[in-house]
Amino acid sequence: MTRETRTKKVLKIRGGNRIREPDLIVREAPVAIILDDEHLVTLLCTPADLEHLAAGFLLTQGIVKGRDDIGRVYADVREGAVWVESASPDRPLEKVLKERFVTSGCGRGLSFVDPGKASTSVKEVPGPEVTPALVASLMKEFQERSRLYRMTGGVHSAGLADAGGILAFSEDIGRHNAVDKVLGESLLKGIDTEGLILLTSGRVSSDVLVKAAVGRIPIVLSRAAPSDLSIKLAADLGITLVGFVRGSRMNVYSNEWRITGAPTGKKGRTKRQGRG
Amino acid sequence: MTRETRTKKVLKIRGGNRIREPDLIVREAPVAIILDDEHLVTLLCTPADLEHLAAGFLLTQGIVKGRDDIGRVYADVREGAVWVESASPDRPLEKVLKERFVTSGCGRGLSFVDPGKASTSVKEVPGPEVTPALVASLMKEFQERSRLYRMTGGVHSAGLADAGGILAFSEDIGRHNAVDKVLGESLLKGIDTEGLILLTSGRVSSDVLVKAAVGRIPIVLSRAAPSDLSIKLAADLGITLVGFVRGSRMNVYSNEWRITGAPTGKKGRTKRQGRG
Repeated sequence: MTRETRTKKVLKIRGGNRIREPDLIVREAPVAIILDDEHLVTLLCTPADLEHLAAGFLLTQGIVKGRDDIGRVYADVREGAVWVESASPDRPLEKVLKERFVTSGCGRGLSFVDPGKASTSVKEVPGPEVTPALVASLMKEFQERSRLYRMTGGVHSAGLADAGGILAFSEDIGRHNAVDKVLGESLLKGIDTEGLILLTSGRVSSDVLVKAAVGRIPIVLSRAAPSDLSIKLAADLGITLVGFVRGSRMNVYSNEWRITGAPTGKKGRTKRQGRG
Repeated sequence: MTRETRTKKVLKIRGGNRIREPDLIVREAPVAIILDDEHLVTLLCTPADLEHLAAGFLLTQGIVKGRDDIGRVYADVREGAVWVESASPDRPLEKVLKERFVTSGCGRGLSFVDPGKASTSVKEVPGPEVTPALVASLMKEFQERSRLYRMTGGVHSAGLADAGGILAFSEDIGRHNAVDKVLGESLLKGIDTEGLILLTSGRVSSDVLVKAAVGRIPIVLSRAAPSDLSIKLAADLGITLVGFVRGSRMNVYSNEWRITGAPTGKKGRTKRQGRG
């Protein structure tokens, strides 16, 4: 057993054949985030990189604004908890908790940020501009790094990249957790995410879009579909949203000026496979 | 625009070709559940079948136990709200709200049921026993009904079935919402879910498993992967959990006695595609 996987005997039925053999299963465990000795929330997640998860959660929920707001972060996987010390103990935690706004994500989520009120525009973030070839190449690298997905089939991936390649990468049973983990890793390592590119394996619902905006990330690339609300938010917030990235094929839903090259008039065909 | 989809102009890049053409996008909207004039929760969901969503949410979160607990249910899509009147206004809503337990689902979710404490065993539900051929046939019917997925690529599906076929079916941008909608539909229509089969297009995390247990559903079929926690819960609660159902291939993770036929010793090969 690792933090990410567990081996289980599984009955595999393949037409008329049945065999019981070991298979790798992705782990899921409850993990409590304790902020200054107060229990903030319990997440179900893949119990690896818990410091990243906690930092990213606090960031994308609007509880902390940057590295300076956080003191020590300490995770204990066996205890199923991450302790975060606030650098400024006078933060308005009570107020934040009262403003809980529940979002769906893939199902339903708890978000402290109301997507309807998200005001973190990245319009003033000028770039980057990317070519479709770069989009394809980043998505290829992204999928090659999805080791846990190839092993278990049970996780989503998230990555942060610049034109040179992927800078941070994470996988988790939770679509949002994976995004929080890469943002949290950047926060803790002092990597400025402004102007970077977010990659996700999953559907882009409004809450994923809001996370990108909080990180001041102007480009979101997904292998899967966006919702109409995420397209509207992306358009309003100045984010270039690209979905269904499959090789050299992709759909651009908003702020297409960041994708270099002008449209021609030839007819495209859409092919879909897999769920986000 | 329908309740489920919206048409948007999209820039489609197909290798060297670019074309701007209309595409169907799945809708996502915030919907408030108002229980006896109190705001209980706001979910982001595909705004169709909101009465089903509300009833299913209340059921799977342990807030109501059955049809008798609910009076009138009324949804207004434009308002983005569902009003539910409790049949017994002395329900301990305050207590329930205090016991909120946040779960991940695909990301993170709000669950009023602690999966670690789920005690709704279906061990005493004797059947049904199903053949692999029935599993394959139900999954085929399930996929054929996934109209919104074929149109938009941006939703998950859930269904309830018996040996005769699918009885309730739903699609939603949220993996958990889809499950709540079929359970809510059954609740409102007076269909007893005990002994039925739950189908899902998505990963089976612990919260999906708990929803099945609440509905006293002994068989869960998924096209995608389970987590180790959901396998453990399924084993403990008496649920037969079958994942990666692809044609006549499937993996049985727990309580395999409900899948008829004895294992042979021949070697199986696992093929994975798509994310849950």
